[in-house]
Amino acid sequence: MRHELLLKMASDAKEASGPLSLLSTKTKNSALARMAKALLSKKDFILAENAKDVKCARQKGIPASVIKRLELDPAKLQKIADSLALISKLKDPVGSELSSVRRPNGLLIKKVRVPLGVILIIYESRPNVTADCMALCLKSGNAVVLKGGSEAIASNRAIYKILNGAAIKAGVPDGSFQFVDTPDRDAVKTLLGLSDLINLVIPRGGEGLIRHVAEISKIPVIKHTKGVCHVYVDKKADLEKSVAIILNAKTQNPAVCNAMETLLIHEKVAASFLPKICDALRKKGVRILGDVRTKKIVPGVEKAAERDWYKEYLDLILSVRVVKDVDGAIRHVQKYGSHHSDAIVTEDKNAARKFTEAVDSSAVFVNCSTRFNDGGEFGMGAEMGISTDKLHARGPMGLEELTSYKYVVLGTGQVRK
Amino acid sequence: MRHELLLKMASDAKEASGPLSLLSTKTKNSALARMAKALLSKKDFILAENAKDVKCARQKGIPASVIKRLELDPAKLQKIADSLALISKLKDPVGSELSSVRRPNGLLIKKVRVPLGVILIIYESRPNVTADCMALCLKSGNAVVLKGGSEAIASNRAIYKILNGAAIKAGVPDGSFQFVDTPDRDAVKTLLGLSDLINLVIPRGGEGLIRHVAEISKIPVIKHTKGVCHVYVDKKADLEKSVAIILNAKTQNPAVCNAMETLLIHEKVAASFLPKICDALRKKGVRILGDVRTKKIVPGVEKAAERDWYKEYLDLILSVRVVKDVDGAIRHVQKYGSHHSDAIVTEDKNAARKFTEAVDSSAVFVNCSTRFNDGGEFGMGAEMGISTDKLHARGPMGLEELTSYKYVVLGTGQVRK
Repeated sequence: MRHELLLKMASDAKEASGPLSLLSTKTKNSALARMAKALLSKKDFILAENAKDVKCARQKGIPASVIKRLELDPAKLQKIADSLALISKLKDPVGSELSSVRRPNGLLIKKVRVPLGVILIIYESRPNVTADCMALCLKSGNAVVLKGGSEAIASNRAIYKILNGAAIKAGVPDGSFQFVDTPDRDAVKTLLGLSDLINLVIPRGGEGLIRHVAEISKIPVIKHTKGVCHVYVDKKADLEKSVAIILNAKTQNPAVCNAMETLLIHEKVAASFLPKICDALRKKGVRILGDVRTKKIVPGVEKAAERDWYKEYLDLILSVRVVKDVDGAIRHVQKYGSHHSDAIVTEDKNAARKFTEAVDSSAVFVNCSTRFNDGGEFGMGAEMGISTDKLHARGPMGLEELTSYKYVVLGTGQVRK
Repeated sequence: MRHELLLKMASDAKEASGPLSLLSTKTKNSALARMAKALLSKKDFILAENAKDVKCARQKGIPASVIKRLELDPAKLQKIADSLALISKLKDPVGSELSSVRRPNGLLIKKVRVPLGVILIIYESRPNVTADCMALCLKSGNAVVLKGGSEAIASNRAIYKILNGAAIKAGVPDGSFQFVDTPDRDAVKTLLGLSDLINLVIPRGGEGLIRHVAEISKIPVIKHTKGVCHVYVDKKADLEKSVAIILNAKTQNPAVCNAMETLLIHEKVAASFLPKICDALRKKGVRILGDVRTKKIVPGVEKAAERDWYKEYLDLILSVRVVKDVDGAIRHVQKYGSHHSDAIVTEDKNAARKFTEAVDSSAVFVNCSTRFNDGGEFGMGAEMGISTDKLHARGPMGLEELTSYKYVVLGTGQVRK
């Protein structure tokens, strides 16, 4: 795609972002309702376009797991429509007052939420991301430039076309949604240079994509990168809770970023607990790699190599290590973890406090599953992903995390002394 | 400076940032008190080192305005010590609870402030920045890597040495403060590549420095860039307030980023108001450049070129333009401004609302001077600078803006359904 065209798309988005930032909650919500309706009424068209992508992917020999993410059906479309309806019901973050102080000189200083401006989303094969991002950006008053994966281009184009048309009819400024209609990878590089027009880039997808974006972007990036998540079973853990939490964190949905990848066990309970939990995990089909001590306690465990402690398996595979105590567990998490989601199981308040204070992750869990690190579970209603960065937004990114703020200062003629 | 040495400094800072993030408020405050004391008791040493920098700068023919910023005296050192004492009195942001929700499944989800980790500060010729940044980073629990300008290197080294020694004696982890002791500009490039070790870079100084840092950094940057600040005098302005605000915004300290650079006037009041205000400004030594209509109304005004509307003069020079109405003023500010500080003078609430909503600046003022965009004036006690970015921190950056957060989730065995 030509540089000039990409520049025009970003400029149009910036142009639209002014009026979009001032759009009433009512208009935004009725647009979201109209978008949901349009999506369902045009479902035959969307499914036909999606079938083209799926056919093409099969011809290219793309893995079945990717095709599964790519493929739409009426039930998935209904879910996307439900998500639009849900977002219309969430509180509008724009204009809400974060603080308000009256200064001794009489100035009233208000800190007010405002949209960020223009957000660039770079994503891979899930077509639902197109709809989710359009809805979240609209509700938070941001214009959005969408650059999806080439394997989903027909599906994304169809969803974009229908939702954009419905939104404009409902009064959303034309230009608020931009779709980069090219499989060309150079387009990404051009877009990531437009720091005067685009305020934030959110890459969503595999580690390679995110690293590439972070490496070349001139625009601020919020990374939603891998989750090497840990569960640590302390000496004073309730072992029944431990079993439930471990099975949930590993097997309830192993392909997601907040699933557990490494289990750490206090040496005092390893001998009694490890055989039991490994047996339960194996019954669920989990392959176990362990350190020397784990291998001694549990027959048939494979040897974990140094590099395995860094791995995000996203599969029914688990690394297991015996540690000396909570400090040993913290050291392991800090060295090998990815600052995503880590849990301790313990009835000892001091151990829990130590772990939650020292572990530098977006969410730290005590006696519950790492799988709870999720916008829906946190009560945000919907999310853009889970930030593993520390700047601006950390953990689940909902509507509020898609905003900035400004100060509005009301005076009666005050000047500075 | 060798790459390995810079890498070691950043690694040491990261290593120290763990224990530093857990340091008690009491220890941090007593360290700040000790640092203030040490600074004053070693003032002869600091002033002697500073004299070397000043002598060297004079020999190099560095401009008098830069030498003025560089030069220290006992009164300036007292001010730096006072600032350390002030920061010790501010509320510790670390550990404070931003929110706390109990979910229907019984999980208690707390959002807690935590330090960012390691902050790199790149700055120019003011040696007080060394002390201010060390104090603000310490109080907010962050390790800091200091890279000051080459013309202040002896002064910065002296201040660093004394404050670092005092802090370590008071229990601050060794390594929390790192000083890049080289005038070598390549060191900056190396440091800006260390995104695994450094969490944030704050460049402080001229536009060129900030652009350079933003261009090459692999670490997130919060820019504190130029202020092309506007005052708009509306049709319904109180003209007495207007005069006071304009004189204050332009002349009280013209060399700072929140000083006014462009005056916009509603066409309905231009003929009566412009001669009066231009006269008052000229009496204060202000040189005036204007558009065609201003030139017609006020004799002797120079012609403002298109490029002048973008200018941050930082001097007793002012661009003046007549606009049709508040919408014209908004369009001008959005096109030529730098999203820093902009003011409207009006008694019309609708015009004020329109202006504050549409102008996308870190602070928007109604009936008061742009000079109030300042951490001290906003009640933050001290600031790192004024962010013109929209990500993470906007406007004055105080202690809270130097923190991130994490979620601490307390359960009783919950797993995800």
